[in-house]
Amino acid sequence: MIRPEPLQFEQGLAQVRDDRTQGAAELARACLRLLVDSALTITAASTSDWRCALLERAERLAECRPSMAAIRHLVECWQMTVIPRVNARPLDEARRIAAAVGRDLIEQSRQATEQAAEQLARFLGAGRVLMTHSLSSTIMGVFTRLAAQGVSAIVTESRPLYEGRRLAERLSALDIPTTLITDAQMGLFVARAHAVVVGADSRLPDGSLINKAGTYLLALAARDQGVPFYVCSERFKQRQPAWGAPEFESMDPCELGAPGWTCVTVENVYFDRTPARLISGWFDEQGLGC
Amino acid sequence: MIRPEPLQFEQGLAQVRDDRTQGAAELARACLRLLVDSALTITAASTSDWRCALLERAERLAECRPSMAAIRHLVECWQMTVIPRVNARPLDEARRIAAAVGRDLIEQSRQATEQAAEQLARFLGAGRVLMTHSLSSTIMGVFTRLAAQGVSAIVTESRPLYEGRRLAERLSALDIPTTLITDAQMGLFVARAHAVVVGADSRLPDGSLINKAGTYLLALAARDQGVPFYVCSERFKQRQPAWGAPEFESMDPCELGAPGWTCVTVENVYFDRTPARLISGWFDEQGLGC
Repeated sequence: MIRPEPLQFEQGLAQVRDDRTQGAAELARACLRLLVDSALTITAASTSDWRCALLERAERLAECRPSMAAIRHLVECWQMTVIPRVNARPLDEARRIAAAVGRDLIEQSRQATEQAAEQLARFLGAGRVLMTHSLSSTIMGVFTRLAAQGVSAIVTESRPLYEGRRLAERLSALDIPTTLITDAQMGLFVARAHAVVVGADSRLPDGSLINKAGTYLLALAARDQGVPFYVCSERFKQRQPAWGAPEFESMDPCELGAPGWTCVTVENVYFDRTPARLISGWFDEQGLGC
Repeated sequence: MIRPEPLQFEQGLAQVRDDRTQGAAELARACLRLLVDSALTITAASTSDWRCALLERAERLAECRPSMAAIRHLVECWQMTVIPRVNARPLDEARRIAAAVGRDLIEQSRQATEQAAEQLARFLGAGRVLMTHSLSSTIMGVFTRLAAQGVSAIVTESRPLYEGRRLAERLSALDIPTTLITDAQMGLFVARAHAVVVGADSRLPDGSLINKAGTYLLALAARDQGVPFYVCSERFKQRQPAWGAPEFESMDPCELGAPGWTCVTVENVYFDRTPARLISGWFDEQGLGC
């Protein structure tokens, strides 16, 4: 049996917490991988001790990125599936069951992301100009599917860490003609798009969207200029009513790169909320949802 | 008499054209100073030759920043005042008249800017949280007047060249508590402000505003969240119907600092248009206009 490596778990948790480059779905799968590893390697004298230690890690993972519902959702799915199945099992068997459930959920999540992208790509069809904000692996999947069908892109740089530049680089590698703009130019360029397409960090119970800060501005501009605004994400990103009000994560103000002045406070809130009334349609793995 | 210095004029014109730090009113006054210098120093054998060369320079200045109505407006005011007054005058006298008209207009413009700021500051009163975008000397005047009256500021960084940082520095020097955010966070912070206040690059005949790109997004967010949106600028910034459709200046895409990729075009349009319906009030040197 592999020896326990608590340091490895702590490092993995810190990586998920500090990550600014991957989307919510990718980070949720990273959390499940940490649970699979923990299930197989955590030190325990009995199944009961093992479960206790494992659930403590699951709880820490579920809370580590409060704006990303997929993380809490998938971790809770894993807990609810694992707990009844490992009751009264020998430790080695419990480890295998918990790891298998985690791997299965990773695969379900991956397929759901791909299917959601497939649904939106099929709906949009060929020859479209699509505008997006931030970098979503689901939206990257939409562009990949439409690359040979004459799609072109308008991409915001997405301050403070410019993930829009990384998206532009990937689109360019697919030979997709791409226009890169500052976030402030959204209002100037949205009318050139057939549709706005964005991923999601969370979907709230009232149908509103939590996504990278600036998404709400793009939705307002799209509505004002008559351009449809579509969200594409798998159902794991649904935030449950029991979780209470969503938290908007703030990151290190240093990311803005501004010098320090006595009376100036720099704010770096990463997510904003786009109300359901500004969303033309929400595509998930089963198609256009309500 | 001072010798003519055509090189000095060309340098001055290039400086106005390339300037990204000063507002429209300041640059309009810089253009008038170039005309004053030209009037006094341009080489000419006769008043007629002098007028011909001078009007050619005026025409080039009027066109050099098409998004900034104040430049064309003040240069045209100068032309219309100077031309009838210098008819049949000796050259030395014509030079003095043209220079005096220029100096007088510079003073009028300066006073109009200050009076517009005074009008808005008086209307807003004490203890306000004011949000702004870009760096306007008129809005800086509003903050200066309210500095001792408990004003605080929310300032966007204003990509690509971050003039919002320069504004934050100046506000901090006045001991005004200031929050600095990315442009993308506008929608998150606008509800914390009592009012949005912005300057103008131009006012169009239909009452809409041309200002730094991103202003339209801030106006949309302010309207969506019930925060009043005020513009403050002197009347010289009114674009005349005869000038036709306004041009939105594009600057060097390198200002965005993005690497180059084969299929990616970087756009750097500096100004956007905020429709009149999103503007709660327009303050000029005479108060709240229609």
